[in-house]
Amino acid sequence: MLPDQQFLRIPGPTPIPPSVQHAMNLPMIGHRDQETKDLLHSIKPKLKPVFGTNQEVLMIAGSGTAGLESAVVNAVQPGDEVLVIVTGAFGDRFAQICTEHQIATHRYDVKWGEAAEPEEIEKYLKSHPHIKAVFATLCETSTGVLNPVKELARVIRQHSDALFIVDGVSGVSGADVKMDEWEIDILITGSQKAMMLPPGLTFAAVSERAWKVIENNSRPSFYFDLAKYRDQLDNDSTPFTPALSLLFGLNQVLELMEQEGLEAVYSRHRQMMNMTRAAFKALDIPLLTSDESASPTVTAIKPDDFDPDALRKVLKKEFNLTVAGGQKHLKGSIFRIGHMGYCSPADILQTIGIIEVALNKIGKPAELGSGTRAAQEIMLSGGS
Amino acid sequence: MLPDQQFLRIPGPTPIPPSVQHAMNLPMIGHRDQETKDLLHSIKPKLKPVFGTNQEVLMIAGSGTAGLESAVVNAVQPGDEVLVIVTGAFGDRFAQICTEHQIATHRYDVKWGEAAEPEEIEKYLKSHPHIKAVFATLCETSTGVLNPVKELARVIRQHSDALFIVDGVSGVSGADVKMDEWEIDILITGSQKAMMLPPGLTFAAVSERAWKVIENNSRPSFYFDLAKYRDQLDNDSTPFTPALSLLFGLNQVLELMEQEGLEAVYSRHRQMMNMTRAAFKALDIPLLTSDESASPTVTAIKPDDFDPDALRKVLKKEFNLTVAGGQKHLKGSIFRIGHMGYCSPADILQTIGIIEVALNKIGKPAELGSGTRAAQEIMLSGGS
Repeated sequence: MLPDQQFLRIPGPTPIPPSVQHAMNLPMIGHRDQETKDLLHSIKPKLKPVFGTNQEVLMIAGSGTAGLESAVVNAVQPGDEVLVIVTGAFGDRFAQICTEHQIATHRYDVKWGEAAEPEEIEKYLKSHPHIKAVFATLCETSTGVLNPVKELARVIRQHSDALFIVDGVSGVSGADVKMDEWEIDILITGSQKAMMLPPGLTFAAVSERAWKVIENNSRPSFYFDLAKYRDQLDNDSTPFTPALSLLFGLNQVLELMEQEGLEAVYSRHRQMMNMTRAAFKALDIPLLTSDESASPTVTAIKPDDFDPDALRKVLKKEFNLTVAGGQKHLKGSIFRIGHMGYCSPADILQTIGIIEVALNKIGKPAELGSGTRAAQEIMLSGGS
Repeated sequence: MLPDQQFLRIPGPTPIPPSVQHAMNLPMIGHRDQETKDLLHSIKPKLKPVFGTNQEVLMIAGSGTAGLESAVVNAVQPGDEVLVIVTGAFGDRFAQICTEHQIATHRYDVKWGEAAEPEEIEKYLKSHPHIKAVFATLCETSTGVLNPVKELARVIRQHSDALFIVDGVSGVSGADVKMDEWEIDILITGSQKAMMLPPGLTFAAVSERAWKVIENNSRPSFYFDLAKYRDQLDNDSTPFTPALSLLFGLNQVLELMEQEGLEAVYSRHRQMMNMTRAAFKALDIPLLTSDESASPTVTAIKPDDFDPDALRKVLKKEFNLTVAGGQKHLKGSIFRIGHMGYCSPADILQTIGIIEVALNKIGKPAELGSGTRAAQEIMLSGGS
């Protein structure tokens, strides 16, 4: 096996483009110097279209969970009633954060592998008129489900005054999301997924409606006080020391996205999803989610006649290919392929090709080349 | 198309392993300081097995051609008679260098795509008793031929006193070569092929027999005077400023080779060759060379019903995949895939998968997945 080669196909962290890695190697600068102001000034306008918003997108040094907690502590207060739509491990995390902050947390649990149904949420909101915020996950990383956030936003706005707060961590910049048009109130993401950066940076965009609520809140956190980030960012600055290397990288990531074009970025992700799904269908290996609720950034496979962890072991040991296992109760019954960020249809061909060989190695008869062919057909037809 | 992604499958320069790239980013050191001595001291013993020699391997800042010229100017003098075995563009270059140095140059031309036959060279040497040196190419990059250097060395030693000088540029460290055991007198290579480094460094290993000849020569070159390199290297130094970043990288390259094991490195290259050849056979697209004379580092394909340059154009434009075209009279009639250095069987799967799609794009009907399957079968059987 070739040393020093890694094929990283987990749903984050994801591979870093060489020019981004290069940018992150730039020498440190003073975080209160003009260079940092210039850097933030350059980043700000380029971030907005990625979130589909005219609001400034706030940048916080921290992992995605820091972004989720900042949304919770800014938008709701202890004792407030909230609804958390739980479609997997990361919906569950949102609920845990709310509970730890003494928020009156209603959970709406959906079977893992399925998407939330807007009609059900509509019914729930009608019977619970005091809900102050609804939390949902755009792409549920643990199952590969893309929730219908646009439709959820519509029913929430129609049937309540609740803020709609969305965890976009493994979705934003891989899946099209239009925060302003869809009327999402807070949209969070992390750097290490479709944003093509290492972990360590989280993003929050906040609607006018949400700012009004936030300004009337007591804000129990010093570090997560979003208004501080907004006020400083208006002056091209940050309230606390920013993660400068990640910002160097972010500026280059946004250049690459502009170069490719955001619509092309989304189309590439849909094509990679379609290739991955077509390959496993051709190999007659079941997928966890339906086509309708499938995410363009991660695909979960639920084999019925082999052990996914045995496959993962061979992939890692013999081919340097890392795919993810299942989380919580799906541990041992699924595996997950990340296809987001710095990942191309050609990389998916390679992933499928390796998996076909590895399946035969673990004694699962899989027709060599058949999944590859199904994926190639989608490349040829330009299917996205 | 994903920006900032390049699949470089030409027969050099080749991709650089991340840990080597990282090593090359180390800060500069003084080239006469102890750090440089320590670096050369660390490199020296690790280079010998790659060349299959107990001689010190000399390092010269320059491209592969600098190495070839240094062999010529050190080992032969104006007026000497030499034989150059020309199996392609790089054999031709050796002949050109000899001619420019007023050496009486006999060419033994072999049809491009075929290997030299030791029996023919034996006959030639018997009828030309004054030949002082025979020049040959280990891997002829322009055709993907691996010449039978071991057998050539045997007939040369049996039937003449000529020095045997081998251009190992796209062969050494991808193909097994045993300089001492086979009795090669001078073996040259470059950094940018199977050595996994950027261009800019060339290597020369010299036998005891060759040193005796060199010491009696007038040496018309100042920079290429190999004895200077030998004398300085004995003291862990260099006669002129060394290409330090490349040496930082080289030290790491040699670590990676030790980690993988040289036999495993050669076996990986043979497997990649077998995968590539099996794929094109399955696709019914002719190869330029026979199985017997095929190189483990580069494969030339000679299609009979499509334009290779049309294919190359689509590969580059739509998939960021670069393969090489033909040189000299093979321009426009072949394309060449490099599979050496930092390249794995999984990378060959990807290359084949992309080519299958691209063939259909240029209107060449190729059964999707069929070449991939043939390559996968070799991965499964461990064929090398």
